This record gives sequence, structure tokens and C-alpha cells, in this order.
Amino acid sequence: MNAKKAAADKAVELIQDGMTVGLGTGSTAYWAIHRIAERMKEEGLQLQAVSSSKNSEQLANQLGIPIIPFSAVETIDITIDGADEVDGESSLIKGGGGALLREKIIASNSKEFVVIVDESKLVETLGKFPLPIEIVPFAAELTIRRLEQLGCRPVVRMADESTFITDNGNWIVDCHFDEIKRPGELGERIKTIPGVVEHGLFVQMASTIVVGHLDGTTTVR
Amino acid sequence: MNAKKAAADKAVELIQDGMTVGLGTGSTAYWAIHRIAERMKEEGLQLQAVSSSKNSEQLANQLGIPIIPFSAVETIDITIDGADEVDGESSLIKGGGGALLREKIIASNSKEFVVIVDESKLVETLGKFPLPIEIVPFAAELTIRRLEQLGCRPVVRMADESTFITDNGNWIVDCHFDEIKRPGELGERIKTIPGVVEHGLFVQMASTIVVGHLDGTTTVR
Repeated sequence: MNAKKAAADKAVELIQDGMTVGLGTGSTAYWAIHRIAERMKEEGLQLQAVSSSKNSEQLANQLGIPIIPFSAVETIDITIDGADEVDGESSLIKGGGGALLREKIIASNSKEFVVIVDESKLVETLGKFPLPIEIVPFAAELTIRRLEQLGCRPVVRMADESTFITDNGNWIVDCHFDEIKRPGELGERIKTIPGVVEHGLFVQMASTIVVGHLDGTTTVR
Repeated sequence: MNAKKAAADKAVELIQDGMTVGLGTGSTAYWAIHRIAERMKEEGLQLQAVSSSKNSEQLANQLGIPIIPFSAVETIDITIDGADEVDGESSLIKGGGGALLREKIIASNSKEFVVIVDESKLVETLGKFPLPIEIVPFAAELTIRRLEQLGCRPVVRMADESTFITDNGNWIVDCHFDEIKRPGELGERIKTIPGVVEHGLFVQMASTIVVGHLDGTTTVR
């Protein structure tokens, strides 16, 4: 069984009738969105959702999951989303899919933030996965130079021949740190830089981590 | 004599041959840009400039000031820009004109950041002027709610009938705090909120403040 699907299925069990649900983005969130649609059909589960990307919104629309505008959101009860790395203290690197800003806005405004990963994403120390940082295109050269000064090798993300553009019209710089010893501290330093919109370090945000294993079992912590 | 023009003229004296100059935005920066063009004509002053807004770039183009792309910038020697409020410790509120993000990127990458104001901008405590905060339009309702929780009355800036859009495609929220006792601390808290791109508090950034008085004299500190 697919380990990602196993984690997604398990996490979707946490959704209860009437909840407002934040939808993540990426290959694991894809399974969660499918499972939500299944539960709506099979059990008559009622919910409304907000989406962290145009892709997930499209998928939700296709599957009949009602998406509401943020102006109609009183509170987000639960957000289910994947991650690119998870360390032992439940700090995350996210943003491999390029939706980190919207994902972080939704997660940080959710009562519960449930992270679903397959076991390959568990690490002792974050940083092997390059940290995605969203920056404004204006004077990007200056901002990138300052990221470099934090001790990483910054690589502007491309899409085919041209610069990758986020849903918010910005760039992603994938910063190769190799090892991130103090993610909380690094995150603060990064966000302080003028020109940085958001970074992919999610520290002290996840309330639950659901890990999917290759044999189809899951571990919840 | 115009107090803004007096401050601008004085600040432009600091520019030396061969410098890369950051151009600010707004009514006081307008005078500085004009004075720079005059010095180029009168004295043959040579310089290159980067601009913090489309408006200032247009003005510079009209006046014959060479604007270079950021990819060609080695270092910004001096930036001259206005402010909406200046306190006794040279902390500023900026962003009345809506260009705070680009202004802050340029100022924070400049060796010298010279602030030019007329004396009406001097205050004991910042905050009477509503603090402009640039946020992404996505889920703006959630971000604005979090700004409100910091103790301000947030007002989305409008342009005629529709939301004002910055050069970066974002919104400005003018946050009425009335009194900002610890601008450094508040700035950090604001910038940490996912969805906030930048705020108008410029703390420990100004290297020189030039104050223009109504009688045409200036004070430099």
C-alpha cells in the first residue's frame, strides 16, 4: 500500500461533521483530498474547505468538495498537509511544491495542523532538503545575496526555461543549508530580511504528525 | 522656502561622484530627485541610481538620471528618502505613499540611509500616523484579524472605489496604533505573521536624519 495514502487516510479520520478544513498541496495532500471526497460520499460527511493552492482548489472542485472564500471563514478547524522533512521536534520544511506561503497562512490560522508524511521524510536534523524561501522579484539579487550570507547556497527555482512564479507572483529560492541546527532562530532571521515574503520552516506549528509506512500502517505522534 | 526642499537639497550634498544612489518615493524624495538632476547638470556629477518605485523611476528617467538594474548593483552607497514620522531615536514610520517594501529593501542594502523630513514629521512617540503594513491578498481577512490582535485598528487602503494595489501586487493595511512604545519589538511581531510581506517601521536603519525647517534652514543629526 502507498505510505502517503495510508497517512492521508488516517489523518482524514480526524475530520468531523461541520468542520472547516484547510486543504494542503502536493502529492500527500492529494490523497487526503481524495479521501475527504470519499468520506463525503460514503458517510454523508458535511464540511467546507479552504485551499492553499489553485491546484488543490481545482481538485476539490472536481471532487465536489465545497470551497468557501476566506471572507466567510470564522475559524479553520483542521488543516491537513504534507511536508518535505520532519524532525524529532515536529519542525518541518515545506515548500517543495511552491505553495509554502499559502500553506503557512492556512496552517497558522488553524486550530489543528495535521502533517502527513511517508516515513522517508523523517530526519534527525532538517536541512538536507533545500529550504524554499519565497521572495519578491524586485531587487531579488540583493535579497539572494543576504540569504547567502546566512550560510547557504541559494538556487532560484526555475520552471522549464524561466523563473518559477508562485501563486502570489513571487520567486522561490531553494536554499541549500545541508544542516539546520536551530530552525526557529534561522526562520526568524530569514523572515526579517526585507524582500523575504515567507520561508518553508514550520516550527512549533504541527499539532499532530501522521507517518505512513510502506506496509500500510501508520504512526501518530 | 519649502522645508521639504531644504532638507532634500542638504541631503543631496552628501552624494559624491561615482556613487550608486537609492532613490526614495514621495513628496520629499521628489525634491531630492530634482536636486540630483540639477547637480548632474550644474556640476557634471556622475552617478547611477536604483529606484524604490515606478513613479520615482519615471521621474528619474524624465530628468536624465541613469537607472541601473539590480543585477548590475555591486553596492548601494547612499539612499535618500522621506518618512512619515521620525522619533527621537531615529526610528521611522514609512509607507504613506505605499512603497514601503521597495524602500526598505533598498535602504537595508545601502551603506548610508539618509532620511529627509520637514519638522512636522518629528514626534516623541511613533504611532499617531497609521502604520502601513503590506500583506498578500490571499486570505487577507485572516491576516488582518491577526494584526488587529496586536492592538490596532486596521484599515485596508483604498484607491477610489477599489483596494489599493502596491507595485508588488499586494495590499496595504493602515494600522492605527496611536502609540507605538517599542517599535523594534512590534516590527518583529508583525513581520512574523504569515501573510505579512513587510511593515513600515524602520528601526535602527537611518544613518542620518536631515530636518528641514520652514525658514529654509536644516538640522542634521
